[in-house]
Amino acid sequence: MFKFASQTLVRPTLLLDSAKAQGNMARIHEKVKKSGAQLRPHLKTPQSATIAEWFREKGIGAATVSSVQMASYFADHGWDDLLVAFPVNIHEIKAINELASRIRLNLFVISLETASFLEQHLAHSVHVWLEIDNGYARTGIPYQDTEAIASLLRFFESSTKLRFAGFYCHAGDTYRTSPKRTQEIAKETIKALKELKNKALPKFPSLKLMYGDTPSASILEDFEGIDQISAGNFLFYDSMQFDHGNCRAADIAVAMACPIVAVYPERLEAVIHGGAVHFSKDSSTDASGITHYGHLVGLQANSWSEPWPSAYLKSVSQEHGTLKLTAEQLSTLKVGDWIGVLPAHSCLTADLMRSYLTTDGQRIAMMPK
Amino acid sequence: MFKFASQTLVRPTLLLDSAKAQGNMARIHEKVKKSGAQLRPHLKTPQSATIAEWFREKGIGAATVSSVQMASYFADHGWDDLLVAFPVNIHEIKAINELASRIRLNLFVISLETASFLEQHLAHSVHVWLEIDNGYARTGIPYQDTEAIASLLRFFESSTKLRFAGFYCHAGDTYRTSPKRTQEIAKETIKALKELKNKALPKFPSLKLMYGDTPSASILEDFEGIDQISAGNFLFYDSMQFDHGNCRAADIAVAMACPIVAVYPERLEAVIHGGAVHFSKDSSTDASGITHYGHLVGLQANSWSEPWPSAYLKSVSQEHGTLKLTAEQLSTLKVGDWIGVLPAHSCLTADLMRSYLTTDGQRIAMMPK
Repeated sequence: MFKFASQTLVRPTLLLDSAKAQGNMARIHEKVKKSGAQLRPHLKTPQSATIAEWFREKGIGAATVSSVQMASYFADHGWDDLLVAFPVNIHEIKAINELASRIRLNLFVISLETASFLEQHLAHSVHVWLEIDNGYARTGIPYQDTEAIASLLRFFESSTKLRFAGFYCHAGDTYRTSPKRTQEIAKETIKALKELKNKALPKFPSLKLMYGDTPSASILEDFEGIDQISAGNFLFYDSMQFDHGNCRAADIAVAMACPIVAVYPERLEAVIHGGAVHFSKDSSTDASGITHYGHLVGLQANSWSEPWPSAYLKSVSQEHGTLKLTAEQLSTLKVGDWIGVLPAHSCLTADLMRSYLTTDGQRIAMMPK
Repeated sequence: MFKFASQTLVRPTLLLDSAKAQGNMARIHEKVKKSGAQLRPHLKTPQSATIAEWFREKGIGAATVSSVQMASYFADHGWDDLLVAFPVNIHEIKAINELASRIRLNLFVISLETASFLEQHLAHSVHVWLEIDNGYARTGIPYQDTEAIASLLRFFESSTKLRFAGFYCHAGDTYRTSPKRTQEIAKETIKALKELKNKALPKFPSLKLMYGDTPSASILEDFEGIDQISAGNFLFYDSMQFDHGNCRAADIAVAMACPIVAVYPERLEAVIHGGAVHFSKDSSTDASGITHYGHLVGLQANSWSEPWPSAYLKSVSQEHGTLKLTAEQLSTLKVGDWIGVLPAHSCLTADLMRSYLTTDGQRIAMMPK
C-alpha cells in the first residue's frame, strides 16, 4: 500500500503541488503587473474552477479558454469576462448567444464570412479580437496581410454586434525553441502588433494588444506595449518547458504517480501502468537529444524528488509506459513500487486525467467532459 | 446547419459506420473460426457495451479488456469471461477480488513477486496467462528465458488460486510494418509458442495459446495451433492500418466530423476544430513517406467518401487541427463546412471522444471514465 499525502494510491494518479503552481502564478503575475499589463490566464491547462479560484484571489477577473463548452463551465463558476481563444465555429451560435447574454464574451474573428454570420445571428453584442499570425501559421491573419486586416476592421467599424477589442497573437513557434529565439520572436511580433495598433488607433481609440504563450511569459523580462498576457501552461509547466529552458525542474507542479508492473534489469527498463490514455502522446526532446514522454522523479510522502538523471518515459502505448533507467536506479525498484513522471505536456495529461490529488491531500475535480 | 444521419452536428463528432464495423467483425470472426480458434475481441477499442453486444450476437462470449476498471464495466453488462490484458497492478487487489467473485477472470502474471502476492491476497481463484515477449520488448517474459518461464510454471503447479490457462503473446512489432513482415513475425512467434506449449502440456494438459494483434488478425490466412485470437482495432481500423496495408480504406469504420474554422488558400491549408484532445497525438506514415494524423474524406448524408488523394491532417495542437489540401480540394471548402478525418489511431480517438454517432443516427455512449 502506498500513500501520497495520506491518500492510498490505486491507479495512475495526477499529483499537483499547489505551492509550486501558486508560486508559478505569483511570479508571472508580478512580472506582468510590473510591465503594466494584465494577466488573462488560459484556463485550458487546469480546467478546474477550484484552481481558477487561485487567480481570482489575486484579483484576476478575466480569463481565456479554448472552447465554448469550457467558457460555459467557467461562466457557471462566476467568471464574467472570458475569451474563447479559438476561431469561431459558427455551428455553436446557440451556445455563443447564451454565453453572450450573461458574460462579457470575447471571440476571435478572422474572416469576413464569420463576421457576417455573427452580425446576422448574434442576439447580443460581443467583443472580438483579430488574431494575428506572426509566422507560426496555425490560425490568424498574417500581419503582413494589411488588406485582409483592413477589410475586417472596416466591417467592425460599421458593426453593431461586433465590438473590436484589439489584436491578439499566440506565437506558438516558441514552444520547441530556445529562450534566445523566444526573445527574438517576441521582439519581432510585438513590433508588428504595435504597428497594427498605431494604424488602427484613430478609428478604435480603446483597442488593446494581447500576446500569449508560456515560453514568452516565462522568458521575457517585460511586455512593453502589450496590454494583456494570455498563457496557461506556466501554471503547471512540464518536461517540455523544462527541456527548453523555460522553467526549472523544481517549478513543474504536476507529476503522474504510476505503479510499476514489470521490471527488466537486462533491458534497463521497467513498465508502468501509465500510457497514451493517461499522458496523451506528446513528446519532448531533451538537451542530450533524447525524445521522451517525461522525466522521472522519486515520490515521497507528499512531494517528489528532482528528476532522476538519464531516466525517462521512453514509450507509451494505450495503457503501458516503458521507462528507461540506469542499472543503479533499477536496482532500487520492484514490481508494486510507485514512480513519478513529469509529463511531456501537462495540458494534455490533465485533459485525460480529469482530476488532481494535491500534495496536501485534496482531490480536485476538473470540468465534466 | 449540417446534418449527418439526420442529426445536427455542432462540435467535433466521432462517426461510426456500424455496417463497416460489423463487416470487419464478421470477416475476422469467420477466419478465426475456420482456423479452429476462438475470437476473444479486445474491447478497449469500442469501450461500449452496446457495441460489444454485436460480438455476443455472433456467439462470442469471452473478451479482452485493458484495465480492471474496464473489466468491471463489461462485467456489469453481462460479460462473464474477461481477460485483463495488462500485467497485474497489485494495488488493485480489492477490485480484482470483487471481479473474481462474479466472473471467470483471466489475468496476466509475469513475475514470481506478483504470483506470490496474488496467492496470498486472492479470495477467489483466477485463470492466469503467462505473457510471452516475442522481441517486441514491452511486457512479458522473453520466450528464450526458459528458466524464468519454468519457475513461474512451478509456482502455478502448486498454487491453489492461480489456475494456469496458457501462454499469451501480443506481437506489437507488427503495427508499423508490412504485411510480409507481419507474416514472418507470426511464423516465428507461433513456432516459439508451440514449443512452449508442447513442453508444458504434460503438467498442464488443458493449456491454451493466445495470440493477438490487429495486423496478424487481418493478414494471416490461418492461425494454426493458436486457440484464441485477441485483437480489437480491426473492428474500426484506422489510417495507420490502412497505410500499412492491413485493411482497405473502405474498411475504416470511424471518421471524425470536424468543422472548418479557417481556410488558407495561399498555404494550401485549412484549420478545423479537432486537435489533440479529440484525436490524441498518434501519427502514421503513409506510403509516400508523409507522417500525418489522419486521411481526409468528404462527408455525405450518412456516409463518407474514399480518402481524398494527397490530403491529410498535418498537425494537431490542443484544439486545432491543420489540414493539408490541394488547391482543387481547397477551392470547394469554406469556413463552416464539415470534413471527415479517418484518425491515425482509432482506439485513442475513441478513448477521447467517449461516444459515437452512427451512420443510422444512433448515439452510442462509451463506458464512463
